[in-house]
Amino acid sequence: MGKVLVLFDSAGGNTRAMAELVAEGAGEISAIEVRLKTVEEATPDDVGWCDGIAVGSPTNMGVLSWKMKRFWDDAMRPHWMKVDGKIGCAFSSSGGWGGGAELACQSILTVLMNFGFLVFGVTDYAAPMMTAHYGAIAAREPRAEAEKAACRLLGKRLAEWVALYADRRDDQHPVGKPDRMMPG
Amino acid sequence: MGKVLVLFDSAGGNTRAMAELVAEGAGEISAIEVRLKTVEEATPDDVGWCDGIAVGSPTNMGVLSWKMKRFWDDAMRPHWMKVDGKIGCAFSSSGGWGGGAELACQSILTVLMNFGFLVFGVTDYAAPMMTAHYGAIAAREPRAEAEKAACRLLGKRLAEWVALYADRRDDQHPVGKPDRMMPG
Amino acid sequence: MGKVLVLFDSAGGNTRAMAELVAEGAGEISAIEVRLKTVEEATPDDVGWCDGIAVGSPTNMGVLSWKMKRFWDDAMRPHWMKVDGKIGCAFSSSGGWGGGAELACQSILTVLMNFGFLVFGVTDYAAPMMTAHYGAIAAREPRAEAEKAACRLLGKRLAEWVALYADRRDDQHPVGKPDRMMPG
Amino acid sequence: MGKVLVLFDSAGGNTRAMAELVAEGAGEISAIEVRLKTVEEATPDDVGWCDGIAVGSPTNMGVLSWKMKRFWDDAMRPHWMKVDGKIGCAFSSSGGWGGGAELACQSILTVLMNFGFLVFGVTDYAAPMMTAHYGAIAAREPRAEAEKAACRLLGKRLAEWVALYADRRDDQHPVGKPDRMMPG
Repeated sequence: MGKVLVLFDSAGGNTRAMAELVAEGAGEISAIEVRLKTVEEATPDDVGWCDGIAVGSPTNMGVLSWKMKRFWDDAMRPHWMKVDGKIGCAFSSSGGWGGGAELACQSILTVLMNFGFLVFGVTDYAAPMMTAHYGAIAAREPRAEAEKAACRLLGKRLAEWVALYADRRDDQHPVGKPDRMMPG
Repeated sequence: MGKVLVLFDSAGGNTRAMAELVAEGAGEISAIEVRLKTVEEATPDDVGWCDGIAVGSPTNMGVLSWKMKRFWDDAMRPHWMKVDGKIGCAFSSSGGWGGGAELACQSILTVLMNFGFLVFGVTDYAAPMMTAHYGAIAAREPRAEAEKAACRLLGKRLAEWVALYADRRDDQHPVGKPDRMMPG
Repeated sequence: MGKVLVLFDSAGGNTRAMAELVAEGAGEISAIEVRLKTVEEATPDDVGWCDGIAVGSPTNMGVLSWKMKRFWDDAMRPHWMKVDGKIGCAFSSSGGWGGGAELACQSILTVLMNFGFLVFGVTDYAAPMMTAHYGAIAAREPRAEAEKAACRLLGKRLAEWVALYADRRDDQHPVGKPDRMMPG
Repeated sequence: MGKVLVLFDSAGGNTRAMAELVAEGAGEISAIEVRLKTVEEATPDDVGWCDGIAVGSPTNMGVLSWKMKRFWDDAMRPHWMKVDGKIGCAFSSSGGWGGGAELACQSILTVLMNFGFLVFGVTDYAAPMMTAHYGAIAAREPRAEAEKAACRLLGKRLAEWVALYADRRDDQHPVGKPDRMMPG
């Protein structure tokens, strides 16, 4: 049974709200176990446990928060070269559109790639004019349904890749599923 | 008199709409000459002419368009090491929020840095929950006033830096101007 | 049988030399079919055919070349949303160390992520002080054995992920293989 | 008299060695005052003091270290929107070539852009096949003369931009100086 970890840092609750939606989306795929942990609660065992991980951080100066960075720099360092091959993705909440949330996601993906993870974004749209090509983003709290849908879609896609690649369930390949939304 | 070039590629008109707003914003600063050119029209002479440049591209797969890239790869290559020190910024229109517009701006800034340009983003907000920290972005056409304001603000800031650094007009330093909007 | 495509653009032969080494490395894993194609030769069918892809480009202004970009912008656009889930990685040759090869790799990975690919770098070292954490890089032609080894290692790792995830050969998971080189 | 701050974090001494070389390079330009500070020593007053800043960090997982990040996230946050317009650049030491030093520099530049700084890289070469297009990088300690030269060149260029733009010394524009090295 595929295992998904949603790991996040949140200062004011916005990234936490995203994390809960990502976890909810992962839960839409059957037979996937989902854990939701703050960066304070999480340990390297949680990372070791999972097949796929979604990492969320507030957008702080266009890069993941120092607390989330410290987790990977310090706590995870002894596990480097031992956790390669997990599937990873990112999400981030910034103060506004154009505020660096995509770049913060990119910095998270850079960290995950350093650990040998295979990282991805979502091709399809969660709502008209709302996607998560390099991770899910929100301006502050995800309030509009479109922003919530992007978070759920990221979690769902993570669970699908875990189901396909870790659990070898061919029916979970997203290509061919009928409900994917094109832009427009 | 400071010179600003707004150089853009546009497939369907969205990035063109942004470019016009960026040029409009640059025009808000007195004694700044503004040129607006498509990537097909522009020549290296236009780049050589300007003190500051805003480069816009559709977000194509998260990176500037191949046509804009070709301009810098091919037409501008003979001028490399001869145009250092200009001031640069970026803007991009994507198919939706989370669609890579920030990453496309980053790729434009990478190209500009390669030419020795000093690149910047805008700290202040153009409207509540709308900024241009790494360039101005829009989902499709900038339609909402907030998105339009972000484009204008980018152009204005570019003109301010040009006025300050190329024209040495100390009164144009944005720090200290009374009209800057904080997030929130 | 897992299929690997090595797709590259090369102006002066340096990226071509890297591509041949990447292909050679992929061939170190048994039962993997490897195709080597220039961006002029390749068609979307080649991309559709493969389970994993390594994309190489000269470092042109810190970003993939316009010719490689055009392939994904134009030729591949109609196939968007139809090729998700392939495994991807990048390589690039620049004019010198510090010349942007890592950033060019990052721009390639951004493009591949846009297509829904799962992208990766290599954790282990190819030689003392030589790795490929975000793709294989070289200053001009890969001449030193260390640089050649990094290219081969990238290709080998790609083939391992393809063997593991597309062909479901558990024995090919790199974690646990005895020959991985730590830094130092 | 132009003021340059070289601010760095260093775990094992490699980034410190780079910082000293960057400071040395800045000192090659007359009438520039240079301060060298670790991230533990520095305060926001140091940042407020300077006209130009070079920020260095070990490459930790492809991104600036959490300690350097914390400085900008926490100590500098109250000064956001008050320090726009300074000139910035980056340097980083990684465990090996291809280890993420360019990406770590990029993450530093992202942070600096967030504060409204104008960031730059160096076009010219410091030695054959060694440049600093997006910041100075080294694999571990900068030992070879070429790597040392890249650090010095970055510091020198920073001092030149400060002399030109903050001190308005037209003779310091690097374009036109006779000693610039082309690739090759």
